[in-house]
Amino acid sequence: MAGKQIITITTDFGDDDHFVGAMKGVMLNINPEAAMVDINHQVNSYDIFDGAYSVVQSYHYFPPGTIHLVVVDPGVGSERRPIMVQTKDYKFVAPDNGVLSLVYELEESVEVRHVTADHYFLNPVSNTFHGRDIFAPVAAWLSRGIETEQFGSVVTDYAKFSSPRPKWVKDALLKGVAIKVDKFGNIITNIRPADVPQLFGEDPPPFRIRINGHEITQLSGSFSAGKPSELCAIVGSSGFLEICTYRGSAARTLNVNRGVEVEVALGSAPAASL
Amino acid sequence: MAGKQIITITTDFGDDDHFVGAMKGVMLNINPEAAMVDINHQVNSYDIFDGAYSVVQSYHYFPPGTIHLVVVDPGVGSERRPIMVQTKDYKFVAPDNGVLSLVYELEESVEVRHVTADHYFLNPVSNTFHGRDIFAPVAAWLSRGIETEQFGSVVTDYAKFSSPRPKWVKDALLKGVAIKVDKFGNIITNIRPADVPQLFGEDPPPFRIRINGHEITQLSGSFSAGKPSELCAIVGSSGFLEICTYRGSAARTLNVNRGVEVEVALGSAPAASL
Amino acid sequence: MAGKQIITITTDFGDDDHFVGAMKGVMLNINPEAAMVDINHQVNSYDIFDGAYSVVQSYHYFPPGTIHLVVVDPGVGSERRPIMVQTKDYKFVAPDNGVLSLVYELEESVEVRHVTADHYFLNPVSNTFHGRDIFAPVAAWLSRGIETEQFGSVVTDYAKFSSPRPKWVKDALLKGVAIKVDKFGNIITNIRPADVPQLFGEDPPPFRIRINGHEITQLSGSFSAGKPSELCAIVGSSGFLEICTYRGSAARTLNVNRGVEVEVALGSAPAASL
Repeated sequence: MAGKQIITITTDFGDDDHFVGAMKGVMLNINPEAAMVDINHQVNSYDIFDGAYSVVQSYHYFPPGTIHLVVVDPGVGSERRPIMVQTKDYKFVAPDNGVLSLVYELEESVEVRHVTADHYFLNPVSNTFHGRDIFAPVAAWLSRGIETEQFGSVVTDYAKFSSPRPKWVKDALLKGVAIKVDKFGNIITNIRPADVPQLFGEDPPPFRIRINGHEITQLSGSFSAGKPSELCAIVGSSGFLEICTYRGSAARTLNVNRGVEVEVALGSAPAASL
Repeated sequence: MAGKQIITITTDFGDDDHFVGAMKGVMLNINPEAAMVDINHQVNSYDIFDGAYSVVQSYHYFPPGTIHLVVVDPGVGSERRPIMVQTKDYKFVAPDNGVLSLVYELEESVEVRHVTADHYFLNPVSNTFHGRDIFAPVAAWLSRGIETEQFGSVVTDYAKFSSPRPKWVKDALLKGVAIKVDKFGNIITNIRPADVPQLFGEDPPPFRIRINGHEITQLSGSFSAGKPSELCAIVGSSGFLEICTYRGSAARTLNVNRGVEVEVALGSAPAASL
Repeated sequence: MAGKQIITITTDFGDDDHFVGAMKGVMLNINPEAAMVDINHQVNSYDIFDGAYSVVQSYHYFPPGTIHLVVVDPGVGSERRPIMVQTKDYKFVAPDNGVLSLVYELEESVEVRHVTADHYFLNPVSNTFHGRDIFAPVAAWLSRGIETEQFGSVVTDYAKFSSPRPKWVKDALLKGVAIKVDKFGNIITNIRPADVPQLFGEDPPPFRIRINGHEITQLSGSFSAGKPSELCAIVGSSGFLEICTYRGSAARTLNVNRGVEVEVALGSAPAASL
């Protein structure tokens, strides 16, 4: 291996405890040269989709060869399998519960292995903290150059969910959903420009974006172009349509959270509703 | 010294301020090759036991030679001493207020020094931030290979508290206490399997674990084996008996916090209470 | 360049999202040898002064040559310029919105450049996350030794605010303001010893520090010298006069926040007010 080996860490462990610190100790004990980078430890507790979102929004910014360790593991101690995934440029270590689903969607090919080589685990393995006892040591041994095949056999029946897609429910009405609220209160929807290309063409039709009884009729070019507390809609850094307010929290203004429905209606509002 | 020198950091400084960042700057200015790892900065403000718990749950996972810097320091600016502690495998730098007590309990022998060599401190030393002005620079100079004896003399009257132990108050009634609530709302008690070995033998008797008016009559093998919101009891990764609820917060369900009494009653419930 | 290159990071991105992790990925992809240190990601959202405060309280503790990346950027996507600043010992990368004002005040000379060399940016650049797409890659290329002049031309009309100064409103009455409340609830004012040197001389006069209807008539030497919950005043590690309570939160005790007025009245209290 040339250069230092980067291991990113994404968990729902928060930062109130020693959990992530203990995992880092385990990894440094196996590979003192590992360079560990925190992605996000504030994934909602037990929330596999939220973990998947953090991973898919960040993993491809790292150098090829990076190992991504993901521990959102509501099934810890059950029969769910620890897995190791090889994509073209990256390796992942995670529980087999779908938390890598959004990676599987993006990558052309993935090789998924059931990690069974328990001589790479801590001994003993606790019932409740496989992040420390299984996933961290496996990632650290992997970072020392152990080949993926040493950890277990390829499996094809790994857990995978499909990301929620917006749907055209009428000719001119697209229904989507909020998949995330970020720290600023921006509401990230599951609607991409490719889902409603009309809005991004040369001569976009009139449209209304509806969320919890409010309507937005324009797309913004930036978070800073309007009046404070005014609602806005923008294609954000996530690649998705986001609902925002200028210098404020759209989620608080609208009193909504992840899961709320977001509609895009093309054409002018019907006369009756004016 | 072979390899890079690891310094872990545990504080009650939170993450709303520049405090930990300033400490890291001080250390890198003295030893640019130091590798700093955060254990926990969310120790409850001024809470020496909570700090001690984070340290004892994590320090031994790090490679031998690691320096552990611990700054939970309600007596900053008073006469309490800065100390340096050498154990078989690790070094610690901390205020002499008992925050290393749980380490002293685990280690066979410790050498504790009163750090008096103030040429290793920043100059001037503030009244309110010895983490930055005393403890961080001392840890950084230590990481450069300065011998412990250069920092001050051995003392034997260092501060130390005894960790709270569960007590058998009747033949079949063990009284313990909750010592921590973790991010998931799991309630960590001070009861270890060795305190009540009957439960972990071949043919365990019936028993009831009581907490705030609730009873649990079974031990679980994992956090994921029951129905959502059902109470459970498990030997957790801490090595202690933990009270949990499946995919929920036991602390919230039971409306309790650290300090709440936890009883283990062996035998069937008395007829009167049925 | 000798040794590893340190990049510190200060943002208002919080820790609930993947934002900081994605920025670190971008930087490591450009310079795998960069050593990144978090200063503070809990700067109040959109709060340029709060960001400036974190930076000025920490940057000079780092080794000369350190690059400080600061992304508090309410104007992201607007015409505000990305800038690069060279001081005697450090380099800074930030939006040109005044977030480096307190650095400009401290430094004898600064060279400020408008960063226009967009071949150092990610491609494409999003409208909403210049931290990832512009500032992080610019800092990373800088850390690889690219000369500052390669990034753009010197400008002199950069944004700058003056830090709020206390004022003598009468002969013996100094009016200041709280500029920060820290994690412990200590209230940091904008009053320095040099603003009221009488209090720090050999024979200080009687005085009263007033805040929200309360008076403090003594300066403390440490946070730990009084009775729990008693109010205190101390010159803190910030270099400013701080209002504190022993082992408690002064901000909660006094029910105040940043922006509250703090007065220092010299001399005894007038008879009428007794």
